[in-house]
Amino acid sequence: MKITEMHITPIALGDPPLLNAAGLHAPYCLRTVVELVTDTGLRGLAEVPGSVAVDAALAEARAVVIGADPMNWHALRAKLAERCSPESSKARGDRPWDGRTRIQVFSAMDVACLDIQGHAFGLPVAMLLGGVVRERVPYSAYLFYKYEGAGGELAFGTDPKATGWAAARQKAALDPDGVVEQARGMIAEFGFQSIKLKGGCFEPAQEVAAMKALHKAFPGMPLRLDPNALWTVETSIKWGRELEGILEYLEDPCRTQEGMATVRKALKTPLATNMCTTSFAELPGSVRLGSEDIILTDHHFWGGLRASMELAAHCRIFGQGVSMHSNNHAGISLAAMTHLGAAMPNLTYALDTHYPWQWEEIIVGGRMKIEGGCVTLPKGPGLGVQLDRAALQRQHEVYLRCGLKERNDEPEMQKKVPGWKFKPTRW
Amino acid sequence: MKITEMHITPIALGDPPLLNAAGLHAPYCLRTVVELVTDTGLRGLAEVPGSVAVDAALAEARAVVIGADPMNWHALRAKLAERCSPESSKARGDRPWDGRTRIQVFSAMDVACLDIQGHAFGLPVAMLLGGVVRERVPYSAYLFYKYEGAGGELAFGTDPKATGWAAARQKAALDPDGVVEQARGMIAEFGFQSIKLKGGCFEPAQEVAAMKALHKAFPGMPLRLDPNALWTVETSIKWGRELEGILEYLEDPCRTQEGMATVRKALKTPLATNMCTTSFAELPGSVRLGSEDIILTDHHFWGGLRASMELAAHCRIFGQGVSMHSNNHAGISLAAMTHLGAAMPNLTYALDTHYPWQWEEIIVGGRMKIEGGCVTLPKGPGLGVQLDRAALQRQHEVYLRCGLKERNDEPEMQKKVPGWKFKPTRW
Repeated sequence: MKITEMHITPIALGDPPLLNAAGLHAPYCLRTVVELVTDTGLRGLAEVPGSVAVDAALAEARAVVIGADPMNWHALRAKLAERCSPESSKARGDRPWDGRTRIQVFSAMDVACLDIQGHAFGLPVAMLLGGVVRERVPYSAYLFYKYEGAGGELAFGTDPKATGWAAARQKAALDPDGVVEQARGMIAEFGFQSIKLKGGCFEPAQEVAAMKALHKAFPGMPLRLDPNALWTVETSIKWGRELEGILEYLEDPCRTQEGMATVRKALKTPLATNMCTTSFAELPGSVRLGSEDIILTDHHFWGGLRASMELAAHCRIFGQGVSMHSNNHAGISLAAMTHLGAAMPNLTYALDTHYPWQWEEIIVGGRMKIEGGCVTLPKGPGLGVQLDRAALQRQHEVYLRCGLKERNDEPEMQKKVPGWKFKPTRW
Repeated sequence: MKITEMHITPIALGDPPLLNAAGLHAPYCLRTVVELVTDTGLRGLAEVPGSVAVDAALAEARAVVIGADPMNWHALRAKLAERCSPESSKARGDRPWDGRTRIQVFSAMDVACLDIQGHAFGLPVAMLLGGVVRERVPYSAYLFYKYEGAGGELAFGTDPKATGWAAARQKAALDPDGVVEQARGMIAEFGFQSIKLKGGCFEPAQEVAAMKALHKAFPGMPLRLDPNALWTVETSIKWGRELEGILEYLEDPCRTQEGMATVRKALKTPLATNMCTTSFAELPGSVRLGSEDIILTDHHFWGGLRASMELAAHCRIFGQGVSMHSNNHAGISLAAMTHLGAAMPNLTYALDTHYPWQWEEIIVGGRMKIEGGCVTLPKGPGLGVQLDRAALQRQHEVYLRCGLKERNDEPEMQKKVPGWKFKPTRW
């Protein structure tokens, strides 16, 4: 079997004005959809975070993808490693998101080839990853501080006709009460059994107060706070102590494995990371320093689903927990994340997802369901999702119209707070 | 798909009088062949080291194997982990071989299910492990000190009609000259490009002299010595220094990760292990102590082919090399080892195999070919080998006749050297 076509389609999806360490989400988030077609007529899908850099890297990969056997991942991966430009040293950077492009090419090709294999064999991707250990994969309620507004074509305006969560989602959440109200709205809609707050937006005292308010409003609910590494080691220890007994885990309070190791020694609360240990090359350092209790995989940034299974095996060997990081995404990624969650024997925490913050879809059947906080493994072979080509075209046109070429939360923030500047360490 | 039948067939294969740290090989080695059959008529094969204990463990597993989906390894493995008796603390023991039974059950089921999957999908097992990176998998010439004799039905007598390697194989090899002659005979037949000597049989000075003689006779050939942990740390350092620049690696000179770490600090020669780090639970210790450069996988003792791929990923992450351990085996195991070798991107050393020491087979077509030191990945789906049922029956009858129930090299040695006793550390 050979891959004969590779289609790369950048899309934009509406996104509300969510606050985070790097500033403010633009009214649109970018994704790139990749579709492979084989000489036997099989199709494989993948979705990665969108940027002109990722699109260029995917286009560069096409020369070795066309003609490759989608059954032989090791061979294709070796060719991609030769072909694709090495990451620049700034590619991971200090922003909350991950700008490495080569690893995203690996991820896209891994997922799309697995989708093809699943269709060829009549098996879900989770089976190809070793087998299904759970049909219902738990996600957490991912809360954000936010300004009022819907995002998308309304830019930061609001849609007065919205009801339910679509209405609740538009409200501002800029203090503990707003955060608790947002949690109530999101949990009423999706039934999540754990909660994560994206921190790094306000002074630690306010974010800690929000966690305490959530703890009071949802007694017994596992809670997570992610300051996106904006805190110093001292701040992390000080406010981490305030939160002892309240958090399921504290995610990336500060920068570097050395920093995390120091905080970890001072706290009982487990520490998780997707910023301090983000690659296989960094795992030995994490082990040596004992910097984290939990590694957050993200198949987009670890090189695919198979690579994420290797990460899970590593965590099992070294007694670390596994959870999953998320960026804004559509249903192809949600399906891939769910297959991974279904296959990972040692998935010890509910996964993150931004899915409740989007409302558009590019897959047949529209929005995937989250019920009881879980996504049920899609039926059908491969990823179990098909492209809605009209919807894909529509979101591609949104991409062309919106004019965004990469994620950059700083200028968006400056529209709200003139002169605002990103700082890698703020408090 | 469901597994509806599980056949467990102990067999015995003729084995020459090979010396090793634990004594002397009996005239027969034991293997157990496992065959799974599905409700769709597919069949999957596996082979594990034979003993009544392994056969009992496999029989114990049958209750959860029957009815299981051979596509869902994670689910079956979890059921096996619940069902199968935990290993006794003595199961790994201090002998060169590995007596753990539960892990061998995992291995047998992993291999047989992959064979079924390969047949279902029309793909070689190596593709199911991620893809083929090499079609020709390199093995090393595995030399043994030995007494004169053929083994098998001739017991320790010789077959005067034998020619070529079959004749050379019968000769005694009890000193450096004998070892070099054995190497010449084996390499003439199979074309191996690297050499391993099973040591731990004679005083270090003699074994080191044998390695020097091999180095002189085969200049530039990668050489390995395996004293099977019979040396003290001091002896390992002393004789390891004598061998600097001659060995590709020194395998398990002494016991324990602490011992290996001390030796490793003193030598430039890389150290390999299949006795000091033998399980996932022991990998953190190996990393912490820096005890070995190379881990020898063996899918029988690491829980299968998929588990061996996890081990390979671990070695890649931590910059360790990967090679492969062997016990006496037939063609099903050789096929499985070859698929693993074909799929492992970071296979950095030729694999060990005892295959040249056996002459019987239980697979259709008889003995697999080793040419230029390599086994070519079998054609056809799954493992690419089929059971020769008449041959299986014949070797099962040999098993029944020979009366051996487990491997024990001490009484065999005592027939040659009265009063000989195994010592875990001898020199």
